[in-house]
Amino acid sequence: MPAGAAGDRLDDYLALAEELAEASAPIIRKWFRSGAEVEDKADASPVTQADREAEAAMRGIIAASFPEHGIIGEEHGTEGGEADYVWVLDPIDGTKRFVAGQPWFGTLIALTHLGRPILGVIDIPLLAQRWVGAEGRPSLLRSEGGTSEVRTRSCASLEAAILSSTSPDMFAGAATAAFDRLRGAVKYTLYGGDCFSYGTLASGRLDLVVEAAMGVYDFMALVPVVEGAGGRITDWQGRPLTLASGDQVLAAGDPGLHAAAMARLAAD
Amino acid sequence: MPAGAAGDRLDDYLALAEELAEASAPIIRKWFRSGAEVEDKADASPVTQADREAEAAMRGIIAASFPEHGIIGEEHGTEGGEADYVWVLDPIDGTKRFVAGQPWFGTLIALTHLGRPILGVIDIPLLAQRWVGAEGRPSLLRSEGGTSEVRTRSCASLEAAILSSTSPDMFAGAATAAFDRLRGAVKYTLYGGDCFSYGTLASGRLDLVVEAAMGVYDFMALVPVVEGAGGRITDWQGRPLTLASGDQVLAAGDPGLHAAAMARLAAD
Repeated sequence: MPAGAAGDRLDDYLALAEELAEASAPIIRKWFRSGAEVEDKADASPVTQADREAEAAMRGIIAASFPEHGIIGEEHGTEGGEADYVWVLDPIDGTKRFVAGQPWFGTLIALTHLGRPILGVIDIPLLAQRWVGAEGRPSLLRSEGGTSEVRTRSCASLEAAILSSTSPDMFAGAATAAFDRLRGAVKYTLYGGDCFSYGTLASGRLDLVVEAAMGVYDFMALVPVVEGAGGRITDWQGRPLTLASGDQVLAAGDPGLHAAAMARLAAD
Repeated sequence: MPAGAAGDRLDDYLALAEELAEASAPIIRKWFRSGAEVEDKADASPVTQADREAEAAMRGIIAASFPEHGIIGEEHGTEGGEADYVWVLDPIDGTKRFVAGQPWFGTLIALTHLGRPILGVIDIPLLAQRWVGAEGRPSLLRSEGGTSEVRTRSCASLEAAILSSTSPDMFAGAATAAFDRLRGAVKYTLYGGDCFSYGTLASGRLDLVVEAAMGVYDFMALVPVVEGAGGRITDWQGRPLTLASGDQVLAAGDPGLHAAAMARLAAD
């Protein structure tokens, strides 16, 4: 039985979220590696084209199915942001990766209720991997091999933990020192996973992801996936991630490890 | 017409190199994501099993075809290292990526003549991408979409360049300061590409790769791929990469950019 705010409509919302991923993926695949030097073409670049077309397709589907829901999208802005239910869309999370022709960027789709994420999809369109999470349910990984429930792994200490972060250049000022403290305490740090890393954590294959300079597009979809797999994901102060959150994210597969990492980030 | 030391046997060597990739890939795919917490199982870990089995399969094929050739492999050591032709094998370049279940690690296969690489293969077995380079020939990318020649792109200045590096933690001592100078001069740095980044550079989608703490397994295969695509790849002092090289690699798609990057690494 689904629990929580969405009640028995959660199945409908989940079906729609996956429909959005299905609609976005072929648009993104069409533009991927379609032109050289895309960075310098500004608004006409393939990444911008792919972003806009994919978001427009998703918005159309949402409006047709749930016209009373709001939408926040990175390309086309906010509509109905005061609604109880608001979709948060990032067609291409990892645009630098897309531009480089490296296929481990993702599409992030979340549904929030009163600002709090109740379902999330991390879709990797070029690699046919999709993590799906919803409150009160086990998170799933769909891939060519089928669908399976995923679980984070336990990790007793920072010394045994594998940390992931997209780039050390995400951090500025005090956050740089905090990140350096944490990476000095873990077993090793794996860079450059983008949103794929949160799926990897949900699947029990790494222990911590620490990032900053994130927008709500970048993190809302991650929350149900990580929590539904048994992990913990908050800001660096341990507060829940909502539409009102700042730009820092700390995810841990093991809730005990989350506390240790948060303490290490805070120590100075 | 093939040119250089290998003469008209280069076709045979190239065919063998691709046969090695074909033999290695299913072994690696079999072990990928086959067990949790693989890092703590030491010698019985899936990554070690995959490495050993894949290298053993490749060594058997080489020995059957060219018993007079030497082989240097990361797992099973050196045999016939004094031969004119020596194969250099790294079944899994990016073992941390493999362990995390992130599929953008690679298999590196090189053939050296008198210590100098004359052909190289960067195979990404989980993503069906294979870059193939050989002296005097244009480099190729084979993927599900077919085979195409690849070319690096021109890039006039460091300010316009996209840099890639697997991890800032590769650098120690003076190399840390040198890397920081270079990353401060470029447009931005993309982390975590592992050997995939050199294929990306050969394909004209990023401009520089700078790395350190590399073994001969890690870089010999990269040289023919990058050079055959029009790029330049050396150590940080501009010397050719050979079996006798140190552990630092600088690759640029645009030879003029290579000089600028080398100067920035050297300045202090």
